[in-house]
Amino acid sequence: MMDAAHRLQRAQQCLMENEVDALVVSVGRDLPYLTGYEAMPLERLTALVVRADRTPQLFVPGLEVPRVEQHPEAFETIGWSEDIDPVGLVAEALAGAHRVAIGDQMWSRFLVELLHQRPDLSLVRSTEVIGAMRMIKDDDEVAALAAASAAVDRIAADLRSGVIPLVGRTEHQVSMDLSERILAEGHERVNFAIVATADNAASPHHHPGSRIIGENELVLCDFGGTMDGYCSDITRCVVTGTASAEIREAWEVLRTAQQAGVDAAIVGAPCEEVDRAPRRVIDEAGWGRYFVHRTGHGIGMEEHEDPYMVEGNQRPLEHGHAFSVEPGIYVPGQWGMRLEDIVVATVDGPRRLNNVGRDLPELQ
Amino acid sequence: MMDAAHRLQRAQQCLMENEVDALVVSVGRDLPYLTGYEAMPLERLTALVVRADRTPQLFVPGLEVPRVEQHPEAFETIGWSEDIDPVGLVAEALAGAHRVAIGDQMWSRFLVELLHQRPDLSLVRSTEVIGAMRMIKDDDEVAALAAASAAVDRIAADLRSGVIPLVGRTEHQVSMDLSERILAEGHERVNFAIVATADNAASPHHHPGSRIIGENELVLCDFGGTMDGYCSDITRCVVTGTASAEIREAWEVLRTAQQAGVDAAIVGAPCEEVDRAPRRVIDEAGWGRYFVHRTGHGIGMEEHEDPYMVEGNQRPLEHGHAFSVEPGIYVPGQWGMRLEDIVVATVDGPRRLNNVGRDLPELQ
Repeated sequence: MMDAAHRLQRAQQCLMENEVDALVVSVGRDLPYLTGYEAMPLERLTALVVRADRTPQLFVPGLEVPRVEQHPEAFETIGWSEDIDPVGLVAEALAGAHRVAIGDQMWSRFLVELLHQRPDLSLVRSTEVIGAMRMIKDDDEVAALAAASAAVDRIAADLRSGVIPLVGRTEHQVSMDLSERILAEGHERVNFAIVATADNAASPHHHPGSRIIGENELVLCDFGGTMDGYCSDITRCVVTGTASAEIREAWEVLRTAQQAGVDAAIVGAPCEEVDRAPRRVIDEAGWGRYFVHRTGHGIGMEEHEDPYMVEGNQRPLEHGHAFSVEPGIYVPGQWGMRLEDIVVATVDGPRRLNNVGRDLPELQ
Repeated sequence: MMDAAHRLQRAQQCLMENEVDALVVSVGRDLPYLTGYEAMPLERLTALVVRADRTPQLFVPGLEVPRVEQHPEAFETIGWSEDIDPVGLVAEALAGAHRVAIGDQMWSRFLVELLHQRPDLSLVRSTEVIGAMRMIKDDDEVAALAAASAAVDRIAADLRSGVIPLVGRTEHQVSMDLSERILAEGHERVNFAIVATADNAASPHHHPGSRIIGENELVLCDFGGTMDGYCSDITRCVVTGTASAEIREAWEVLRTAQQAGVDAAIVGAPCEEVDRAPRRVIDEAGWGRYFVHRTGHGIGMEEHEDPYMVEGNQRPLEHGHAFSVEPGIYVPGQWGMRLEDIVVATVDGPRRLNNVGRDLPELQ
């Protein structure tokens, strides 16, 4: 069970260690991580103010108060009525504070208004205070990630065995089908369901469109949702018929590269090594200039969060870091492919949370 | 068709009229409204910088560039590669600007980083520059809202006729059913699907839970999604059997109140009058203290946007303002009810976009 009092106490320690006077978090995942309560992304401000020397205060719109599970030992809940300026309440709670950490995803409108009232604030990002803490998933969090991963594995298995019809449907139709399956498998939210065929797949974040999937085409599906607060994210590709020799060859390179990325996810290794290992494989095979993004992103309550598997990130991997390993090869105007699993770094070595097959099925 | 060049030119005029040097918008709906391009809510910055005296610049992560529909006559697209600090690019584009408007929903992390580079900026909200422009929906926008409203009307009709099973299912199961129907009716995204039964409905934003719906219970369903970029939002209630006399009486009050709110939506009337009219009806019937929220919110590319139908908002309604009219009565510990339609103020009078029945069906 998530223990709000424990997490908030640790956040208070982090404030002291980082010499930050206060932490303000709003929408985004810092808030449910610390309190169990998720704010709706609304024009009505929800804000948790944490200071080292007092009880944390959660300001919520009055009509949301019934949704807050009270933890009086951990934080005080204050509902504000619609005739009150909630930013003023936050400004009051920050009296005497100067160096203040702001949640990454808080809407800028509230920060702009806060700065009107407190132009003297010196701002830092919340990740500088509680980022290291959030990155390390405890056993319950890993279990939640594993359950979400298993759910999308089942969908990927249906994709790979031909149970999900492809030929003759639009990318958009297949995307909606995947979305419905994501919900049916127990996620409370669909985060994305990318379906990209042939040259459309050369755009890594292609938006599924009206293109009708034909035969003998490479189809890339990258999908995930949020289940019990934790995210899934998987990419698998299939061919609707027979793959060309080029595509088969590239896929074997990609699969070897992805394995190299997983194998590099050793506790103590720098995050950038997880980026470099697959890149070396793809470079050596001559496809290097077509691998146009970083290898992975952290995952947890957010689809993308720290730590990032990217050149320049020298943070050493720790037991409990969870992230994607997802190299890709994108040949503009021709085709694109990506292979993605979620991996947790553990003292016993890298642990994959996605376990569905990684070959390139040729569906007849 | 949305005309990016035209909208951006008008935004530039708004900058001059409001004596603001630059506008920076990121995630949220200002960006698709102005450019047709919607940024994914990502840790990779997308930002449009508009200044009155030069071509607007859209900074996007390199791998998103293929998703941007180019309008070179309207704005310049600049892809940034993963070894670049994108906030630095925005800071450069703001050289010489002092008073800068920031998009409401831009993630605070980027604003914090921008302020590190440009601590001299004087910030205002983007709504102060382009809010009035965005509030007035043109004919294409009203048509998109009407299509989305018609889609949720069809789901509400199934709810009201008993086609959607309720008794014996959990609120969560019914919520998932509504979510799947929202997608099946053509929305690209589910925004919310609140299902609240009996005393759970006394919390206006109740999160659907494991409570099993019984017989003779009042069930509140408030749901909507985004279809072709524009939002739907409707609330209807049904009773799973026979309604008590108290509930029948309160419903007639609520229905009269909602009609009064719609009737008050006259071009030239202040927004707060749309709040006051239903409140008077509910007050006079003696339920006033149980109507705990404003009467409505603007709707368009966002589920909730300006103008708000709330006490204190003296903005006069204009032809093309679109908003919800959704009074409610919530008796703590007992039951809650709400009735919601989307309405457009027009020179010919208020136009409802939701047209499904408004009585309280007793499903046997």
